[in-house]
Amino acid sequence: MDTWNCPFPIQQYPCVLLAHGGGGKLMQQLIEKMFTEVFGPKPASGLHDSTVLNLPAPRIAFTTDSFVVSPLFFPGGDIGTLAVNGTVNDLSMSGARPLYLSLGFILEEGLSMDILWRIVRSIRKAADAAGVKIVTGDTKVVERGKGDGIYINTSGIGIVECEGPIVPASVQAGDAILINGDVGRHGIAIMATREGLDFQTTIESDCAPLNDIVSRLIQAGIEIHCMRDLTRGGLASALNEIAQGSSKTIQIDEASVPVHQQVASACAILGLDPLYVANEGRFIVFVPETQAPKALEILQSHALGQGACRIGKVLGECKPVVILKSFIGASRILDMISGEQLPRIC
Amino acid sequence: MDTWNCPFPIQQYPCVLLAHGGGGKLMQQLIEKMFTEVFGPKPASGLHDSTVLNLPAPRIAFTTDSFVVSPLFFPGGDIGTLAVNGTVNDLSMSGARPLYLSLGFILEEGLSMDILWRIVRSIRKAADAAGVKIVTGDTKVVERGKGDGIYINTSGIGIVECEGPIVPASVQAGDAILINGDVGRHGIAIMATREGLDFQTTIESDCAPLNDIVSRLIQAGIEIHCMRDLTRGGLASALNEIAQGSSKTIQIDEASVPVHQQVASACAILGLDPLYVANEGRFIVFVPETQAPKALEILQSHALGQGACRIGKVLGECKPVVILKSFIGASRILDMISGEQLPRIC
Repeated sequence: MDTWNCPFPIQQYPCVLLAHGGGGKLMQQLIEKMFTEVFGPKPASGLHDSTVLNLPAPRIAFTTDSFVVSPLFFPGGDIGTLAVNGTVNDLSMSGARPLYLSLGFILEEGLSMDILWRIVRSIRKAADAAGVKIVTGDTKVVERGKGDGIYINTSGIGIVECEGPIVPASVQAGDAILINGDVGRHGIAIMATREGLDFQTTIESDCAPLNDIVSRLIQAGIEIHCMRDLTRGGLASALNEIAQGSSKTIQIDEASVPVHQQVASACAILGLDPLYVANEGRFIVFVPETQAPKALEILQSHALGQGACRIGKVLGECKPVVILKSFIGASRILDMISGEQLPRIC
Repeated sequence: MDTWNCPFPIQQYPCVLLAHGGGGKLMQQLIEKMFTEVFGPKPASGLHDSTVLNLPAPRIAFTTDSFVVSPLFFPGGDIGTLAVNGTVNDLSMSGARPLYLSLGFILEEGLSMDILWRIVRSIRKAADAAGVKIVTGDTKVVERGKGDGIYINTSGIGIVECEGPIVPASVQAGDAILINGDVGRHGIAIMATREGLDFQTTIESDCAPLNDIVSRLIQAGIEIHCMRDLTRGGLASALNEIAQGSSKTIQIDEASVPVHQQVASACAILGLDPLYVANEGRFIVFVPETQAPKALEILQSHALGQGACRIGKVLGECKPVVILKSFIGASRILDMISGEQLPRIC
């Protein structure tokens, strides 16, 4: 895929023009020469306003996410990878098997056609890796200075294949809380690139599709009460949202939350708390205590869960708070972040 | 709905801040106080990464559209109305009954909270009118100067209830082409507002949900071969896309295409051809000649089809072009627009 040449006449249109979003010939060229080239042949029945799909089952998960990350390219991924994995992961967190994505571009006039081409290929590569198909799309172009190169929306449909509802309200007192790896890589990778920070080794984003590792848990019959990927707001925000959605008290051991040494150092320099830093391939899963060892074993046997471990539990109390047992043994409330730590992280 | 007061503390946050997209407390407040207030109560199971839906049937239509219209408010609607109706109409054009929409906001830092509130209410009003539900959403905030107030993506799911595939390839030689009313209102309404043109009477956008009028045709057993709503690029682009998708020659009578006198005058002043001007509540439908009178009667008996008429037919030739028989009886090819007539029309 990396040697694929851009089929669109870059020589003729090195940059995106307003007319590429105007519904006329240039837009048709962009769609036919670049998008349908990468996302599969134009259907024999002709491109139409929506795509008709035959789902294998009528119980589905549906989600949407817009991506405005800055910079567009960062160590470990780009806005295209993020746009696919972000929506794949949101579906996975409901216990659904992601099948189809839509793709909505908002392009800024003047965006280099070469950058668009790199992102489009990256989207295809990420979709292939996650086993999902891009089935419908839309392109708009805004004037120079009314966007920032490219914004992407992906919406996704998945089939729900597990039994019980995987939602905050299913969380039970006594549940063990597992995580699939160390936290903070994505946020630090973005921050370091954006601010031009020069750490000794480049920290890469953990951006990855979580559908396969989640399906291993489901196939093994693990009774999953809730899952959440640790994106904007990081681990702390995800825990707080689940505490509120379940009206349960959650207790986390700070010492058990894995943080890579380089992420910890970068956080120390930047004055950030890794518990609030965004991830794009990390999730927490709430399972009954009795199933925790088996679930942990499944996570650890997967490439995306080698650093999996147990980080805490759900207490018997019904007060929706997150308690952090700190390194020195003290307990404090781990609140939601109130301001803005890292804007445009995804 | 018009007397609904904004439940979000506008006094405290008169404008959108970056932190409203940061995944923390401010974002949670915005979602819980404004969005769930308008789009229905937070589910008892807690807000989650995706929404689980039980569809009445597994054959669905799926579509996506981003809206970047400028100005945000115009005679006959606003970006919110457009975002709902645009996606509802894209589903309707595949013969699907629209059920669920997702809603993705890209807000610019500094957007007045009052404007957001007006748009959010307008989305709810349009969704109610079309009979669809907003079931999942996402909010991102970009820095001042990296957006233009608000961009909205809606993706939609509908249930396909009719038999044959309603796609360009189903178009047959001899098909009659019907339209549900006069063309060019939306584009002229936007253009007049944007450029501050002061025509004697305000032309309103035709923005409307087409699902009900389409379902009347389907319920009456009309054998619909293809439909298309006449958005960006107008009637001319829609006809060209269908000519190409079906590899058929289409012939249109210019005199039979209804254009409101004020739209025609505005087009004459602005140097625009109404056949290329965008609409948001107009569509064409291809039906067998024998069913044309009945289909026309159904269209005309509906509030959104009172100006319905026949505008042309599909010829026996298999060359994918659109031929326009002009007012004076001459024939010419009606091509796709190549440049940009009206940027950011939707």
